[in-house]
Amino acid sequence: MTTKGFQEYYPDYFSYCYGCGKNNEYGLHLKSYWDGDNTTVARFKPEPYHTGGYPGYVYGGLIAALFDCHGTGSAAAAAFKAQDREMWTEPPIRFITASLKVDFLKPTPQGVELEIRGEILEIKERKAIIDLSLVAEGIVRAKGHMVAVKLPEDVAVGNPGPA
Amino acid sequence: MTTKGFQEYYPDYFSYCYGCGKNNEYGLHLKSYWDGDNTTVARFKPEPYHTGGYPGYVYGGLIAALFDCHGTGSAAAAAFKAQDREMWTEPPIRFITASLKVDFLKPTPQGVELEIRGEILEIKERKAIIDLSLVAEGIVRAKGHMVAVKLPEDVAVGNPGPA
Repeated sequence: MTTKGFQEYYPDYFSYCYGCGKNNEYGLHLKSYWDGDNTTVARFKPEPYHTGGYPGYVYGGLIAALFDCHGTGSAAAAAFKAQDREMWTEPPIRFITASLKVDFLKPTPQGVELEIRGEILEIKERKAIIDLSLVAEGIVRAKGHMVAVKLPEDVAVGNPGPA
Repeated sequence: MTTKGFQEYYPDYFSYCYGCGKNNEYGLHLKSYWDGDNTTVARFKPEPYHTGGYPGYVYGGLIAALFDCHGTGSAAAAAFKAQDREMWTEPPIRFITASLKVDFLKPTPQGVELEIRGEILEIKERKAIIDLSLVAEGIVRAKGHMVAVKLPEDVAVGNPGPA
């Protein structure tokens, strides 16, 4: 258990993601944490302008974005843990999303804090599979399923970029 | 063929979506158009702060968000067309996303215009299925698959909201 979000351990070079980079001036600054051995959690309160087409409810694209950052962060954290290493010791471990499926089950109300949960289904040398859910007012509003892949170590160091 | 984007026909009440609402002061203002009988297109140039965790490449959450708005807009347009009606005549037709799967095939570079394409696979009374793709510099970077459902007419009018 830690009080610092996974994303706050990312090296500065990787900390500009719009969704979760601590150095992105305009971004959402999502922070993810362990909540149990195999499950992770992040909390986020959307801004009023994050409305969807239907007034009073959160924009679906935001939900997908929160899942994306929480999922890849959870994959990296799980990979460090599987190697019994502290977050963001060398060499770097960096996951990117290969696929993300989002099922929108119920409308997500605005004006309340959202809880984004992750469950590590599989963590392997090159791949992670994560189940995701979004809860508002105690009710699951959306579910996600992510396949994330680990960047090769030379790419994860930061230079050169991926082909 | 029209020069006005699908989303610009939405009634004011539905025009606050962060992704595509013309009245959302902070939003992305995505606009979608027909490009052929059964295919749609939108173009969008991300801002520099829409970077992902990997510098120089677009944030995956934005790609999902663009697919979401382009897909539901395309579904509504296709439903009007199937009924041989002009966009946003009464009664309203409004689709929301039931599920969206995004496959991220290649990194999406920043600094260039993105083309988001939609193909109407199925348009029925209550449901639409749309294939999506995102192209940058002539290369498909991501693919999407959306199932969208039509809101009941009384809900689509705008009041009361969905349960």
